[in-house]
Amino acid sequence: MIDAIARHRSIRNYLDKPIEPEILNEILAAGTRASTIGNMQLYSLVVSTSKEMRNALAPCHFNQPMVTQAPVVITCCADIHRFSLWCRQRNAEPRYDNFAWFVSAAIDTLMAAENVALEAEAHGLGICVLGTTIYTADKIVETLGLPIGVIPITTLVIGYPADQPPLTDRLPLEAVVHHETYHDYDTQSIDKIWAEREASDETQELLKVNDLPNLARIFTEKRYTANDNLLFSRKYFEVLKKQGFFNQ
Amino acid sequence: MIDAIARHRSIRNYLDKPIEPEILNEILAAGTRASTIGNMQLYSLVVSTSKEMRNALAPCHFNQPMVTQAPVVITCCADIHRFSLWCRQRNAEPRYDNFAWFVSAAIDTLMAAENVALEAEAHGLGICVLGTTIYTADKIVETLGLPIGVIPITTLVIGYPADQPPLTDRLPLEAVVHHETYHDYDTQSIDKIWAEREASDETQELLKVNDLPNLARIFTEKRYTANDNLLFSRKYFEVLKKQGFFNQ
Repeated sequence: MIDAIARHRSIRNYLDKPIEPEILNEILAAGTRASTIGNMQLYSLVVSTSKEMRNALAPCHFNQPMVTQAPVVITCCADIHRFSLWCRQRNAEPRYDNFAWFVSAAIDTLMAAENVALEAEAHGLGICVLGTTIYTADKIVETLGLPIGVIPITTLVIGYPADQPPLTDRLPLEAVVHHETYHDYDTQSIDKIWAEREASDETQELLKVNDLPNLARIFTEKRYTANDNLLFSRKYFEVLKKQGFFNQ
Repeated sequence: MIDAIARHRSIRNYLDKPIEPEILNEILAAGTRASTIGNMQLYSLVVSTSKEMRNALAPCHFNQPMVTQAPVVITCCADIHRFSLWCRQRNAEPRYDNFAWFVSAAIDTLMAAENVALEAEAHGLGICVLGTTIYTADKIVETLGLPIGVIPITTLVIGYPADQPPLTDRLPLEAVVHHETYHDYDTQSIDKIWAEREASDETQELLKVNDLPNLARIFTEKRYTANDNLLFSRKYFEVLKKQGFFNQ
């Protein structure tokens, strides 16, 4: 397996050490080699390295320390703005301000982002993907000065790792792979898929700390609650409309 | 640069040669090593290899020959269904049937998909990403039997390449990278970004064939027209609601 893929783990503690500019360039260039729909490259990578900008972004990521600790924060944005500007400048009429192109641009963005992550790891750097990006997209738009036609999808923090945590477990491969068509899960298969994780010492410790009877309830009652989910859903969809991805 | 990243090109012609099961397994396992929000793995990879299923999927991809020519077609789906089943089976109440989790699951799906693509290429295989997936998501849902809570995001065809086309050009790195904050484009920078591509022999040939004055108008009038964009936008958003990702 490609070494960077096999060794990937999320890094949450970083050394106070900048990334060499030529290495950062190589990492960003790797992003642009990913597949892109119609070779339109419908994304922008906003690379924030100054202390000031990382401090400004930190609250958008619930002040997780890694945002200011890691030397590089890359906000990966779907971008139909640049392409549309070009079209207009050529007397062509762009109509990419709609949902299909939000999804297409998000596909471009995320394939590029994964390349960036892997190339960084191939240089001995660590990365973490910040799922908080969509919760506070309105603040990020403001902080980074994103124009209409640009919306943040995900964020990568990158830097030299201060620790090397063990690989995170995954569900067995057969849990996520279906042959030919989708094969639905029965009660037994659901039990089997999660058996190892539910039995792990880490889970047992979590149940004790959270005083809850099982891991699923830690997800629904502590980590990603109904209230938060609905709030963030509505907020992000508003940002999507405001940024011009739903004119249909 | 990671070899598979540096050498990536889309392959549209494949040899009639199956992928060895242990290699396919390694490729799929590479997918599951990608970052995933909360380690929830909100995706399913539907791996269609039978002639019958590839024939059934072909019309969903406008009958592009590579869908039946390539030995493996992987439909990469956002999947909140499996996780929600588990929650319910543990008396936890999942509320992941909304837009925030469509986007979060799409992030998981696409990072996994890019790992799958790169690992395939590291084994000497070729891949192509099918942007058609979101245009015909309703048909794909039916063809693959996707339950509520599962929606196709993208498709990879994978096989041994019958040819090795040259690398595709990309915009200059500075076109897609912004330092600290987003820096908007002026008329000159837009001209500069597209100068090389617009001047290329390939573009000149396209203009002749299409009888149009510039490349931008090939995009807006031939490749991705306003009518198609709006039609596909509305259709995909309907599928998204029908598949239970917009209960908010």
